[in-house]
Amino acid sequence: MYRTEIGVIGLAVMGRSLALNMADHGFKVGGYNRSREVTENLIKEYPHENFFPFYDMRELVESQERPRKFLIMVKAGRPVDMVIEQLVPFLDEGDMILDGGNSFFEDTRRREKSLREKGIYYFGTGVSGGERGARFGPSIMPGGDREAYEHIAPVLEAIAAKAQGEPCCAYMGPDGAGHYVKMVHNGIEYADMQLIAEAYLLLKYAGGFTNEELADTFSAWNEGKLKSYLIGITADIFREKDDFENGELIDYILDSAGQKGTGRWTSLESLKQGVNVSMITAACNARIMSNQIQQRKMASELIKGPERSGIPDKKAFGEAVREGLYTAKIAAYAQGFSLLSHASGEYGWDLDYGRIAAIFRAGCIIQAEFLDDITRAFRKDKELTNLMTDSFFRNGINNGHESLRRILSTGILNGIPVPAMSQAAAYIDAFRGVPVGASLIQAQRDCFGAHTYERTDREGIFHHDWGQGHV
Amino acid sequence: MYRTEIGVIGLAVMGRSLALNMADHGFKVGGYNRSREVTENLIKEYPHENFFPFYDMRELVESQERPRKFLIMVKAGRPVDMVIEQLVPFLDEGDMILDGGNSFFEDTRRREKSLREKGIYYFGTGVSGGERGARFGPSIMPGGDREAYEHIAPVLEAIAAKAQGEPCCAYMGPDGAGHYVKMVHNGIEYADMQLIAEAYLLLKYAGGFTNEELADTFSAWNEGKLKSYLIGITADIFREKDDFENGELIDYILDSAGQKGTGRWTSLESLKQGVNVSMITAACNARIMSNQIQQRKMASELIKGPERSGIPDKKAFGEAVREGLYTAKIAAYAQGFSLLSHASGEYGWDLDYGRIAAIFRAGCIIQAEFLDDITRAFRKDKELTNLMTDSFFRNGINNGHESLRRILSTGILNGIPVPAMSQAAAYIDAFRGVPVGASLIQAQRDCFGAHTYERTDREGIFHHDWGQGHV
Repeated sequence: MYRTEIGVIGLAVMGRSLALNMADHGFKVGGYNRSREVTENLIKEYPHENFFPFYDMRELVESQERPRKFLIMVKAGRPVDMVIEQLVPFLDEGDMILDGGNSFFEDTRRREKSLREKGIYYFGTGVSGGERGARFGPSIMPGGDREAYEHIAPVLEAIAAKAQGEPCCAYMGPDGAGHYVKMVHNGIEYADMQLIAEAYLLLKYAGGFTNEELADTFSAWNEGKLKSYLIGITADIFREKDDFENGELIDYILDSAGQKGTGRWTSLESLKQGVNVSMITAACNARIMSNQIQQRKMASELIKGPERSGIPDKKAFGEAVREGLYTAKIAAYAQGFSLLSHASGEYGWDLDYGRIAAIFRAGCIIQAEFLDDITRAFRKDKELTNLMTDSFFRNGINNGHESLRRILSTGILNGIPVPAMSQAAAYIDAFRGVPVGASLIQAQRDCFGAHTYERTDREGIFHHDWGQGHV
Repeated sequence: MYRTEIGVIGLAVMGRSLALNMADHGFKVGGYNRSREVTENLIKEYPHENFFPFYDMRELVESQERPRKFLIMVKAGRPVDMVIEQLVPFLDEGDMILDGGNSFFEDTRRREKSLREKGIYYFGTGVSGGERGARFGPSIMPGGDREAYEHIAPVLEAIAAKAQGEPCCAYMGPDGAGHYVKMVHNGIEYADMQLIAEAYLLLKYAGGFTNEELADTFSAWNEGKLKSYLIGITADIFREKDDFENGELIDYILDSAGQKGTGRWTSLESLKQGVNVSMITAACNARIMSNQIQQRKMASELIKGPERSGIPDKKAFGEAVREGLYTAKIAAYAQGFSLLSHASGEYGWDLDYGRIAAIFRAGCIIQAEFLDDITRAFRKDKELTNLMTDSFFRNGINNGHESLRRILSTGILNGIPVPAMSQAAAYIDAFRGVPVGASLIQAQRDCFGAHTYERTDREGIFHHDWGQGHV
């Protein structure tokens, strides 16, 4: 019998990559997969002295000393419950299960509760970074029992990406906190990608930028405050030659983007919590619109757009787009973190936003220098309720909002869809306390439904007699 | 023992109003309320020869010939289930229960199924129009068994509002269809009110309109294609004097609007269905923002807005706002009806959109001449998938989109939050088939997650080798 230190259950791409990452760091890893071929292929294609295959779950369990540790890497939903059902009969009190998939946090809360009653520790563990991240250093967001976390910390912190020497893995909070943070991470990722897409549309269709100019522009942006993984790959994308035709690949890719659901979960959750994440929702909706290929094609012959007017100064326009994108990005992250802040209170998690921003600094899709600034903001003020009021970020907005407004105006007048950037401006303006028209809405509600209103000049709840025909 | 023709259970404002409305139309109505005083007050304050009080549910049931009919008007949720539990033991096969509250459609589906198994017909029945509508003619949206509907049609169609002689009540579809249509009606109402609020902000803060000018402007609008209940009461609101101070009430109402949940349900449901109702969601989010009084106040001292520039021609600007509002309104209704269209397929309801638009023409909050045009569009083309492709409405967009773009530009440059109107422009632009930037998003997804892409020039699913550092 092999002696192992952790077991990985589910050896598809992500499970395999994490198992090999652990093995690289000297941990003796047992691996199990429901269908035997997957395991056999793994040891054939990626043999590793620290990886040990098992074809029987009981043997996998018995290969470890107590307390035992298992990382489940199977499809979210029913498969996770099935693995738990199979695994638990072999476990002892104090053993630990980590779910590293994109499970819905409410499922994680349910499973954690049910296993805790059996004396087993359950960790909903968000893992970001895709195959490459999993293999060489992801960002990891574990949630569960605080004390038991110390047992799994050495493995997780070893395999995580490092940012300024700190591992991009930290204890997030109880029960579903880890999977919740991962969900919001993905929501922010949706918004970030949508903002970059809108910057692209503005530069290309209002600014007339060629692919080469786009690549150079994004490369230059990647040297400054927008420096990030997503801006970097975007620069590369515009340079990438097509596999079949002359020119660049980007111009042959169908204008239709898929989604796997975590952005939508974030939007759904924010509506339930009463938190405005309009930019994340705009990103989900933009992908929905992009999928209506036939309808868009038909409508293109029926609905006219405006005449497009050129912009006078390409360089100045590029600079305005950069500033506008940066300003909108602040708003997007402010929305995501305000959802975390609300959830922390709602679910009793006591989330540490500085720590969360810190583990996003490397390993994950939204990794960026920007996250250093967010980390600093929350470390400086743990009670910060909205990122936009931090001095660094409000300076960013104060310096950049005029650019955001100008490029939005250019986009909208030129018929370029800019739904997420528009929501950034609306969010900033509503947030900074100008009238939002709710007084009129409340007057209407009192008029047709006797919903009452408050006043600006005196305390209390009021109802006006709106006269004949109204309540 | 009285002889009655229908029983109303729950005699608070809405139940009482509907009961009296039925009584006015010659139906002998039995009424029951859990607490006896409500019923006693009703017969004291609103005595009616056709209304008969009951203090025992069994007696209420026994006062009717079979098949019996009961309208439940209690708070949505658990109270509805409790009434059903109390009522059902006294009923016979073929009897009918109508739930006239704002029940969530999934609850209605569950209840309908469970009662059908007992031989009892259940109708989720949306009722719109508030107290006044309920009393003198609401818009009514019943869903349930098609044949059994003939038994309740005479009462419902008698008490409904009338539009061009047609009752604003019609069979919507099976099980939850009626409550679903009511939910989407409310979602559209949210968007409609938000658009009016944004028009108000633009006129007031960019245009410099006084309350008197606002009242005159909305009155004038109410003579043309924007003619509607909401525009009408808005004109009245700007004229209404304050109860305490000099000037108009509107200027003393706190800029904070409540919501009771149906708009949010519509947004949640649209996300689940993968349908873009961005303007309804923007309306929900705008109310959320308006509630953050303290945070907005604090932020107002930290985050700067732009210098506001006046507009040169007040009259021309007012006209542009009118055209822009009308164009945005088309987009809002297109979003609402496209959700209905998607739900109809998803739940197997075979909804008749022309009929739905027809019953919105009077009695409800969104009643408007505009609904005549929607009715015509769907009666002309039952397969119309999006309102914006109908010839009448696409002409509206083609004529009005430039105005919408201009006022959006003015609003955004002047720091006025216009989230719903912005989403109208983004929706129209994405819909009309211009590039939406999804090609870049899909390239990013293929680069970091091997999510593959389709091409514009050949069939199939492709994955590009993005080189070192990428999957």
